[in-house]
Amino acid sequence: MNIEGKHYRTVWVSKDGKSVEIIDQTKLPFKFEVLTLDSAQKVATAIQEMWVRGAPLIGVVAAYGMALGMQQDPSDKNLQSSYDLLIKTRPTAINLKWALDRMMESLKDAPEQTRRDIAWELAGKLADEDVELCEQIGLHGVEIIREIASKKPAGSVVNILTHCNAGWLATVDWGTALSPIYKAHEEGIRIHVWVDETRPRNQGGLTAFELGSHGVPHTLIADNAGGHLMQHGEVDLCIVGTDRTTTQGDVCNKIGTYLKALAAYDNQIPFYVALPSPTIDWTLKDGKTIPIEQRNGAEQSHVYGINPEGELSWVNTAPAGTTCGNYAFDVTPAKYITGLITERGVCAANEPALTNMFADLKNSVI
Amino acid sequence: MNIEGKHYRTVWVSKDGKSVEIIDQTKLPFKFEVLTLDSAQKVATAIQEMWVRGAPLIGVVAAYGMALGMQQDPSDKNLQSSYDLLIKTRPTAINLKWALDRMMESLKDAPEQTRRDIAWELAGKLADEDVELCEQIGLHGVEIIREIASKKPAGSVVNILTHCNAGWLATVDWGTALSPIYKAHEEGIRIHVWVDETRPRNQGGLTAFELGSHGVPHTLIADNAGGHLMQHGEVDLCIVGTDRTTTQGDVCNKIGTYLKALAAYDNQIPFYVALPSPTIDWTLKDGKTIPIEQRNGAEQSHVYGINPEGELSWVNTAPAGTTCGNYAFDVTPAKYITGLITERGVCAANEPALTNMFADLKNSVI
Repeated sequence: MNIEGKHYRTVWVSKDGKSVEIIDQTKLPFKFEVLTLDSAQKVATAIQEMWVRGAPLIGVVAAYGMALGMQQDPSDKNLQSSYDLLIKTRPTAINLKWALDRMMESLKDAPEQTRRDIAWELAGKLADEDVELCEQIGLHGVEIIREIASKKPAGSVVNILTHCNAGWLATVDWGTALSPIYKAHEEGIRIHVWVDETRPRNQGGLTAFELGSHGVPHTLIADNAGGHLMQHGEVDLCIVGTDRTTTQGDVCNKIGTYLKALAAYDNQIPFYVALPSPTIDWTLKDGKTIPIEQRNGAEQSHVYGINPEGELSWVNTAPAGTTCGNYAFDVTPAKYITGLITERGVCAANEPALTNMFADLKNSVI
Repeated sequence: MNIEGKHYRTVWVSKDGKSVEIIDQTKLPFKFEVLTLDSAQKVATAIQEMWVRGAPLIGVVAAYGMALGMQQDPSDKNLQSSYDLLIKTRPTAINLKWALDRMMESLKDAPEQTRRDIAWELAGKLADEDVELCEQIGLHGVEIIREIASKKPAGSVVNILTHCNAGWLATVDWGTALSPIYKAHEEGIRIHVWVDETRPRNQGGLTAFELGSHGVPHTLIADNAGGHLMQHGEVDLCIVGTDRTTTQGDVCNKIGTYLKALAAYDNQIPFYVALPSPTIDWTLKDGKTIPIEQRNGAEQSHVYGINPEGELSWVNTAPAGTTCGNYAFDVTPAKYITGLITERGVCAANEPALTNMFADLKNSVI
């Protein structure tokens, strides 16, 4: 999508073809800076330190990490150690494992001297596939928005609530939850997006930045506000992303998603989850068993933004000596989810529907 | 309660008897500063700008505002204009109106030369009454905590989640939601408090500050985290405060309370609301009709804390040009509330139970 009129992806190969470039998302939404990653180690740091974030983007960047690893040293030993290094960078996102497994599958039996080229090519293919998946999600999801718009008085605005950033910054392009929103905006449907701030890391700022760059009307709100807005008819539907989806349709997404799903359910508001199929974990049925990452408490206490001098800085919001908890994700049970918006269409959040839509993928895993 | 070993109330009469002193809560939990209020106008500013906050404290400080007004000019005209000035400072808290009405009732037929003394005396009485109410809430509420502790294995910790600050800083002393927690701590029951950060104004920092000052174990968490903790058995009960309670038991409290109540209900965790009876609005049945204050969007975007230089400052967390929404309260329907902890005991959140417990108060209003 566009930033100041110029089209970007979130990861691309450098002009020399020997490294990849990313947008430093730790500086967004305040500063736009491009970073170069020239080794598997640097990629691991980029994922771990959240220079890149969002399950689909993490997968693609990790794939490029394998390519960089094979460029450094295409030996069996380095193939395995690059995989091991990258797989442990984030514990929750399933796309990471999926992408690394696809790389490993193609590389492990290939002769050493071919691995570098195979790896670069496949990583590029995974990036293109992600763009295609996300655009398809948009095309299917916009049908839901179009239908809601058609039932409202002519000219009314469709109010959509989203949590965290499942926009193009979390993928390679288009995004997942925001892809239908971009498509609706392109179609001329009048929309307005309630953007959850998404504490503790305030990824709602990324969503506001994305939407602002495209001229999509939006309002940034506290994570606490969505329930009240739903009670008062100010939300027509919710669309969120997911880091991992189980076979019974439970959704592991940014902490707080579950609370919004409960409120949507209580107020009979459609609650959709947008996901590319690599987000589905075919080995997992019950979301309660997903390991939830606990991160450093300083991410809760220390808040980043622009200080009175106009510089990017932080303030510590916790009283001295306070212990802070930092749970990164929660699991929304399938019963609170109206539907899953996938690249193949919209389906119910349950095992038969997912199996019906993705029988081929399920069978290839199990 | 204590700060660095010294007992404070949140509002007290200055040594000269001609002004009142308050703790500047806009500087908390980072700096402890006392401010002097010497006129009704200053009191109005203190309430409007949230130098004092919390429904019970606002009521008592407003009462002192009337006393200062009568000290300035005890005329009928100034009596009415002081009332008018103070009543409009915050639109949602019922205690404000309740306290001002009590002052007006005692002053309106009194001779002008007696009004000053009557007003100071009654304001002091309202302050003392508030302390007594809050301590009674603690004594009734601790029974619930004691019972939960008795059902857990010996030596286990009782985990209590609270939202916003309904501690002694929100009242004159003891607090409402935190009063049972202080009582449990005094009794030696092992407790741990999950403190919701409470965006946008981060009043959870005040709660962490209070609890820390008293040595009550606690962890500050994002507002998004409570649902996840409840799903995983990490919360034994919730206790929150309320700014206004309707006759059918609907509770208007800090934005986000409703979401926690939904999660507690979904996970069969007791959800209690602590309230002194002045918080009950006997003229209102359905919480949906309570006007919800919308405040400046800058409270959402601009976050206060200690900067890297150790000074109290702020950062703007929103991307340039972002519109921010700021809804101050929401309404939790009575059906999600396990019980109301009042100064007279614990009752169900419904009209018969409230009427049964407070028939005299109800009849005095209607």
